[in-house]
Amino acid sequence: MNYPNGIKKETNNKKTMTYDSNLSNKNRGMTLEYELNISNEYYREIDKAYIYKKPTPIKIVKVDYPSRDKTVIKEAYFTIPSTTDYNGIYNGKYIDFEAKETQSKTAFALTNIHPHQIEHLKNIYRHGGIAFLIVRFTSLNETYLLMVDKFLTYLERTERKSIPINFFREQAYLIKDGYKPRVDYLKKIDELVGGK
Amino acid sequence: MNYPNGIKKETNNKKTMTYDSNLSNKNRGMTLEYELNISNEYYREIDKAYIYKKPTPIKIVKVDYPSRDKTVIKEAYFTIPSTTDYNGIYNGKYIDFEAKETQSKTAFALTNIHPHQIEHLKNIYRHGGIAFLIVRFTSLNETYLLMVDKFLTYLERTERKSIPINFFREQAYLIKDGYKPRVDYLKKIDELVGGK
Repeated sequence: MNYPNGIKKETNNKKTMTYDSNLSNKNRGMTLEYELNISNEYYREIDKAYIYKKPTPIKIVKVDYPSRDKTVIKEAYFTIPSTTDYNGIYNGKYIDFEAKETQSKTAFALTNIHPHQIEHLKNIYRHGGIAFLIVRFTSLNETYLLMVDKFLTYLERTERKSIPINFFREQAYLIKDGYKPRVDYLKKIDELVGGK
Repeated sequence: MNYPNGIKKETNNKKTMTYDSNLSNKNRGMTLEYELNISNEYYREIDKAYIYKKPTPIKIVKVDYPSRDKTVIKEAYFTIPSTTDYNGIYNGKYIDFEAKETQSKTAFALTNIHPHQIEHLKNIYRHGGIAFLIVRFTSLNETYLLMVDKFLTYLERTERKSIPINFFREQAYLIKDGYKPRVDYLKKIDELVGGK
């Protein structure tokens, strides 16, 4: 089970913590998510694309109403997402991707992607959508865009439980750090499928 | 402030309640959401379209780790969604809509749709996506599909804070109850924009 939003139980010794997404961003490998969010904001500002991160799926068990105009969720659990994290529209086309970071310098473990997320990406691809993965090797400071067809071909041809860094270097596209937007993944999409 | 997932504070006298989505479905006007979910499931089963409801956006404040493999959200709040509830892919095209129920027999109050949701639908429309509203008048048992262009034209031409039922009867499309799928909204989309 993966914990969404970078929450890593193992690294937390306190029984109760205050959830702070900024803290998460700095210390818990949330940088890619943060950078994608501001990049998507920028794409919206310049009216290029409307792509959003989906909210983290949560199963709500108990709700409190401490006062007239307040609703507090008192018990809820993270659930496994049915789809990928990001989707939206670009040039009239449906776009869909999953973004992941890894600390590894050698390979991206396939346990990072749920089987139904792979199934979802496959369905989007079959139906003419633009589907891909964005994978960041944080220790190497290398961020790749891997189109879903290449990802699926890899999965068909191997029994391995991970994708080696060399596969990314050969079959995926390096996304260089930018300023505005920070992670200009649509530039790669333009080159691949033709854009504005 | 609207409470997502049909939670209506006003109708709840207990300070703490157990959240039960089935109960919600039966007693709190969640039928349309439930029916759309099973309709979307059916569309996926027959490989027609991949359209999902987005998770309800929640701001997490406190998380507990009562044991090694458990993560419990102990304090969280509903937040206003940035986008609409449903999106996905149909015939390679991006599809996006919001679904709402009303008890009124005469009009649909515009307070049901947040201004940034209207802005979002407008952006999707401008960028070539298929965008619409599904509005159910539960007391009349009438469910309408209102394309976003007609909705936006209405908003431009009126100062009213609601859309009268007659506007739906004249400008929107009645979706008849079905069996499989329960709410066959893509049939209307096929008629309007051309489908398989």
